[in-house]
Amino acid sequence: MADTRPIGIFDSGLGGLTVVRQLIKLLPGENLVYLGDTARIPYGTRSKETVTKFAFEDAGFLLKQGIKCVVIACNTASALAGVELKRKLSLPVFDVISPAIDEANKASKNGRVGVIGTRGTIGSGAYPFKYLKACPLFVPFIEEGEIKSPALELVAETYLSDFRKSKIDTLILGCTHYPIIRNIIEKAVGGNVKIVDPGVCTAKVVADYLKRNNLINPQKGSRKHRYYITDYTPRFVDVAEMFLGQKIEDKVNRVEL
Amino acid sequence: MADTRPIGIFDSGLGGLTVVRQLIKLLPGENLVYLGDTARIPYGTRSKETVTKFAFEDAGFLLKQGIKCVVIACNTASALAGVELKRKLSLPVFDVISPAIDEANKASKNGRVGVIGTRGTIGSGAYPFKYLKACPLFVPFIEEGEIKSPALELVAETYLSDFRKSKIDTLILGCTHYPIIRNIIEKAVGGNVKIVDPGVCTAKVVADYLKRNNLINPQKGSRKHRYYITDYTPRFVDVAEMFLGQKIEDKVNRVEL
Repeated sequence: MADTRPIGIFDSGLGGLTVVRQLIKLLPGENLVYLGDTARIPYGTRSKETVTKFAFEDAGFLLKQGIKCVVIACNTASALAGVELKRKLSLPVFDVISPAIDEANKASKNGRVGVIGTRGTIGSGAYPFKYLKACPLFVPFIEEGEIKSPALELVAETYLSDFRKSKIDTLILGCTHYPIIRNIIEKAVGGNVKIVDPGVCTAKVVADYLKRNNLINPQKGSRKHRYYITDYTPRFVDVAEMFLGQKIEDKVNRVEL
Repeated sequence: MADTRPIGIFDSGLGGLTVVRQLIKLLPGENLVYLGDTARIPYGTRSKETVTKFAFEDAGFLLKQGIKCVVIACNTASALAGVELKRKLSLPVFDVISPAIDEANKASKNGRVGVIGTRGTIGSGAYPFKYLKACPLFVPFIEEGEIKSPALELVAETYLSDFRKSKIDTLILGCTHYPIIRNIIEKAVGGNVKIVDPGVCTAKVVADYLKRNNLINPQKGSRKHRYYITDYTPRFVDVAEMFLGQKIEDKVNRVEL
């Protein structure tokens, strides 16, 4: 049985649109509902208890939209609330962490995998690797659109130079914002390091699941993308389109959770 | 009639502790209740509607603690919700903007006053000056304790170099975080610019008001400072003590608003 219901995706803000970008690429015929909890961003500095509460409210909103599965497009929420969401929700839940771990384990030749993310993600213990580094200043630079600034290069150099010493050969971008500054990260971490973008891996896992279970939307040319946010923030459109990599042509609605 | 009730102070997070620091300096005998809305920080990127809702919830919590006046130790909340709070609350409300405007007008010789702050504060129109600059990356650097980083100096140089061209002689630090990096700001803005710290001016205004109205706490040696936050954040103690400029010896309680 094919399934026309939308895929639900949520994030603390707009970074999850980098995951949506990959889902659109792999599954162009699917209907999507995106929720960005912009009123309560960032999740990365909050406690596990608070993030879990927020994640259940986000998922609850998406469930009311009649979705067929949930993608937690936020590393912090995946790390702190992923297990509980999977256990308690009655539909398939995908996080952005497990697919990245699998991909990194496949990609690494020397077993030295690095992970970068927010403090929340890195401190959560969700990534079973040895070389972890919280990079809390990356998100503000990206959200400000300061993605080519020399100051950001300096910050990246400070955060990532240790990875060169520890000779990692694979690096997971453990925050949905980071693909936007992939070139700066690649430069700071040195050549020959394979970069794992969880958005790409997660979209693959979701696509495989839908195909295997015959849940692909069979309707052609009628795809609908709906975007919801919990607060209008300054520079909203610029930031959203930077993450999505294309114009947002669909209406964006503000909701209270 | 003297008054033993505490002064209530709130901020979106911990930056308001730089105002508390000045209040303690000028009014060492006063009881204080501080609320940092760390679960919903930052206010600086949120809409006026949302900030106003949050500010009334913050003030409502303080009112229940039996305070004698409220200090809005947050520029964004002062700018977006200050007028409404003053109109609707039945006790004296002090914001951090009006005292800084008065002080800057007194200090400036050439009438060229600059203001720096968050996007929310700068975009609010609350400061009646011509030279305004939003410096959204300062707060994340400060909250990370990266207050001596060369990357921050570069960011400051980028934000503030225009002020040298426009020949301002006075600069208002329009965000409670900024006093922490006062030396970096002074360096970037050039010598001979008088820096106005709203925490200092606001504490003066509050002290004058209490003295004039005979509301000073007459009890000696029994002062109580209470701190409330809405979420425990990583590095909480370090960040709080950086802003307060001293050890926090009193218990910090988490509350739901």
